[in-house]
Amino acid sequence: MTHIGLLLFPQLTVLDLIGPYEVLCRLPDTRVDLIWHTTAPVVTEHGLPLMPTLRCDDVAKLDVLCVPGGYGVTPLLTDAPTIDFIRRVGEQASYVTSVCTGALLLGAAGLLQGRRAATHWTSMDMLDAFGAIATDERVVHDGQLITGGGVTAGIDFALYLAAQLHGQDVAEAIQLGIEYNPAPPFDAGHPSRARTELVTQIRQRVSEAQARRLAQIQRAIGLPGTPLA
Amino acid sequence: MTHIGLLLFPQLTVLDLIGPYEVLCRLPDTRVDLIWHTTAPVVTEHGLPLMPTLRCDDVAKLDVLCVPGGYGVTPLLTDAPTIDFIRRVGEQASYVTSVCTGALLLGAAGLLQGRRAATHWTSMDMLDAFGAIATDERVVHDGQLITGGGVTAGIDFALYLAAQLHGQDVAEAIQLGIEYNPAPPFDAGHPSRARTELVTQIRQRVSEAQARRLAQIQRAIGLPGTPLA
Repeated sequence: MTHIGLLLFPQLTVLDLIGPYEVLCRLPDTRVDLIWHTTAPVVTEHGLPLMPTLRCDDVAKLDVLCVPGGYGVTPLLTDAPTIDFIRRVGEQASYVTSVCTGALLLGAAGLLQGRRAATHWTSMDMLDAFGAIATDERVVHDGQLITGGGVTAGIDFALYLAAQLHGQDVAEAIQLGIEYNPAPPFDAGHPSRARTELVTQIRQRVSEAQARRLAQIQRAIGLPGTPLA
Repeated sequence: MTHIGLLLFPQLTVLDLIGPYEVLCRLPDTRVDLIWHTTAPVVTEHGLPLMPTLRCDDVAKLDVLCVPGGYGVTPLLTDAPTIDFIRRVGEQASYVTSVCTGALLLGAAGLLQGRRAATHWTSMDMLDAFGAIATDERVVHDGQLITGGGVTAGIDFALYLAAQLHGQDVAEAIQLGIEYNPAPPFDAGHPSRARTELVTQIRQRVSEAQARRLAQIQRAIGLPGTPLA
């Protein structure tokens, strides 16, 4: 039985979590848990509450740890119980993984040092602060670390992980089951393809949140006990 | 304010719902509700409970009705309160939409008569029973009806709908925000592309469930009050 744990935290981007959840729940002999410090409902970015199925303190070990992203990443960068949990479980897991800005939490736990990693395109330059090698690819695999790009990259990431765990046949059967033969109606899903004014517009919209995030990263790096201190 | 309602029912495929939810929640001046008969938690296909935000009886009118799919579709095909809700709201909505096998519920409500529609590839031949013109495309737009193919097609569908509601610029900004620049690690997302043995394997795996679904569709068509009776 493979035990996969997805971190479920307040203000996460729900598709970061549910893309991989839908794929990984279809794996044979696999248990998928949503993990948080308490079992009370956790309110995600657009207001949808989700229920944790397991408490951090009740997790001795996981085969796969997956950390999704979202605006809720920022306050957690200096949240010792969360960072300690990610470090403790991540150091023993067969695969330590993230989607989107979840990579920053792996970084704050010291798990990205010298490793190639992906994150949401607006946060690529923040990976450097954690000693990671920011890599602009949809899914990046470096040792036991597998990281996906922004939000929807979680589906590509999870199919890749499925193949690592159970072979390509199983991953392809899941891909066919979820009819993942994408056909975006527009070609604007990456800053290299979208119109410049849209890229600028989004960078401006998130600039204040990103400034807060960078300040938090500086604090996280300065904390005693974190590997970058 | 555009009011979008996603039907939230037991045993739905959670990514059918959350793909569009993530996209549509990012639209300006838009309220997105998860709608069911009660406000108690609804348990989805892999066990994740979700909370409805609005009761069917409290919905007078919606701008957009969206019905996701999943194994939970089958019992609802003859569930009068649900079919009546879909028909009542669907007849007045600006857009009546579905993802995956949610199209079958639109069919049972009589909303697909003579219309082109998409659904999950394993269920394409079931659309005929409702007088629909089964169309093997990722997103199908016919009048006020917009239907998506299986599971992950919900993301393509929702971006298309976003452009219909708020223009292509807004849709592209959302696409860039969720970094929807898909790169599936394998090319097995459609029966025309997957290896034949995988297609056969999945058809066999779902054959019993599909037989139950077909029997239900025959019952639904035979019910007094449904347009195909």
